[in-house]
Amino acid sequence: VTYTPSRAHLALGVGVEFDAIRAMLRVWGAQASGIGDDAALLALPKGETLVVSTDATFEHVHFRRGWISPREIGARATAAALSDLAAMAATPAGLLLALGVPPDWRAELDELAHGVGEMAVASACPIIGGNVTRAAELSLTITVLGTAVRPLERTGARAGHSLYVTGTLGGAGAALDALLRGVVPRDADRARFAAPQPRLAEARWLAEHGARAAIDISDGLVADAGHLAAASGVGVALDLSALPCADGVTPESAASSGEEYELLVAVAADEPIDVEAFRARFGIPLTRVGRVTTGRGVSLEGRDDRVDLPSGHDHLS
Amino acid sequence: VTYTPSRAHLALGVGVEFDAIRAMLRVWGAQASGIGDDAALLALPKGETLVVSTDATFEHVHFRRGWISPREIGARATAAALSDLAAMAATPAGLLLALGVPPDWRAELDELAHGVGEMAVASACPIIGGNVTRAAELSLTITVLGTAVRPLERTGARAGHSLYVTGTLGGAGAALDALLRGVVPRDADRARFAAPQPRLAEARWLAEHGARAAIDISDGLVADAGHLAAASGVGVALDLSALPCADGVTPESAASSGEEYELLVAVAADEPIDVEAFRARFGIPLTRVGRVTTGRGVSLEGRDDRVDLPSGHDHLS
Repeated sequence: VTYTPSRAHLALGVGVEFDAIRAMLRVWGAQASGIGDDAALLALPKGETLVVSTDATFEHVHFRRGWISPREIGARATAAALSDLAAMAATPAGLLLALGVPPDWRAELDELAHGVGEMAVASACPIIGGNVTRAAELSLTITVLGTAVRPLERTGARAGHSLYVTGTLGGAGAALDALLRGVVPRDADRARFAAPQPRLAEARWLAEHGARAAIDISDGLVADAGHLAAASGVGVALDLSALPCADGVTPESAASSGEEYELLVAVAADEPIDVEAFRARFGIPLTRVGRVTTGRGVSLEGRDDRVDLPSGHDHLS
Repeated sequence: VTYTPSRAHLALGVGVEFDAIRAMLRVWGAQASGIGDDAALLALPKGETLVVSTDATFEHVHFRRGWISPREIGARATAAALSDLAAMAATPAGLLLALGVPPDWRAELDELAHGVGEMAVASACPIIGGNVTRAAELSLTITVLGTAVRPLERTGARAGHSLYVTGTLGGAGAALDALLRGVVPRDADRARFAAPQPRLAEARWLAEHGARAAIDISDGLVADAGHLAAASGVGVALDLSALPCADGVTPESAASSGEEYELLVAVAADEPIDVEAFRARFGIPLTRVGRVTTGRGVSLEGRDDRVDLPSGHDHLS
């Protein structure tokens, strides 16, 4: 990506707002680039399409204080935003962080910034701008920009395609259930909730190996399979018995667990994917979980017929 | 701008969150483009630089319920974000709207969307994406993308340049003072607070007529003149007696009034700007308010020496 490398920051003025920005810039070091003007500048590779998404993480909606550390909150919010670029098989080019900060979170700004910075470094994504304002509850609204020669869209699924999912499912949901009950989640489940990874390199590999459509399953597998089906004008048949479930998680729970940040991809049937090569390369499984049909909506196979469709996450109701 | 024109929206799934998005899409009509994938796609004109900024408007920080209508809140938040593109002399290419919506604002979503849409139409800026989540207080975090062949940066001011400001100053501050006191503002002042206009066309004209640096004065003239000076490594001498003040507003108040969304530009002295041509074209004044010096910081001329520097707005403290 040809973003201007390590563009110098502008000298910032005085005041609490700029002090907060300066503190974050100290944390981010060379990962932040060209901060301080009214807007950020980005030179994009010729011939590539700009891919852009904005994603918000709000206290009380996406997490509660004490469930995960401020550093995890920063990294998780950044991963969630970058996951939308992964779903398009895009390469990150830059991110902007808009923070809403209540007074009693002010002391955590450094740790929040550390979390954002760690995920930005891990994803090779420069931090190019943002906004800080006080607010009643903590929020991180992160805009991610990326580029792709041929973005992977939700609309590309066709009847006959095979459906694959990355990683294992249900851990994040199990952790969330435990946290909501006031129980300490198992370590593996907690990590799935607290430290999701955007599947950026995985998505680009999949796009190069026959994937025709993708969606991230942050709303849960069944809900997002429904979105993929609606966008492509097709049906989706999921095989619950095939789901790669986290230890101790039922397929029904794995199918409805939100906040997963794995990818569901539709692959042309004449290009069978080498799932072993995928696992060897990325250290996570790639599992065939169903197929695209000529119908509409999502149907479930492999269990008895009375299985209800889990509804997935909704961040407004 | 070569964004894909009227890109069709994807079919959206079920649920309250999607219902809210569908309602906004009905309001926006053809102004919204390609909504519904994990991320938005944008093809940019060859040879132009991408300009991007994110700007947040929070209830209780930037406005209070009842001060201005939901439609005005939407338009104002959009104008504030677009003003950052204006400050770079960029042409809008698209915006993403991240909404934090408390339950008791849910019924106002249509009107908020109308406000965003009206400003998007007025600025020829497609709405290409966004995010909706529930929240404790209303917030609109708007990311704007634009392009420019030669963006106008804060760093371009040099000793000897003349400083010009667009429009008249102090009305927004007078309205804010009145609202904070529980008094009804004068109509003209209220309009300056409730319905600011991003100076997009004005900025491009100025860039073509000798402007070398620009900043929007959303933090107030003196505060933002300080930011311009710091970014350019120069001093700024403002002539308070020259300020284009709103009726009944003192120069000191006009110099510190925030939320103005006018532009301060530095113009090479050998390219005197035709302020009459500017007024004839845009219907607002362009006024020489000072000069760039070899010093540092902001000094005030034209009044007695004891004038203190107004500190401007700070959205964190």
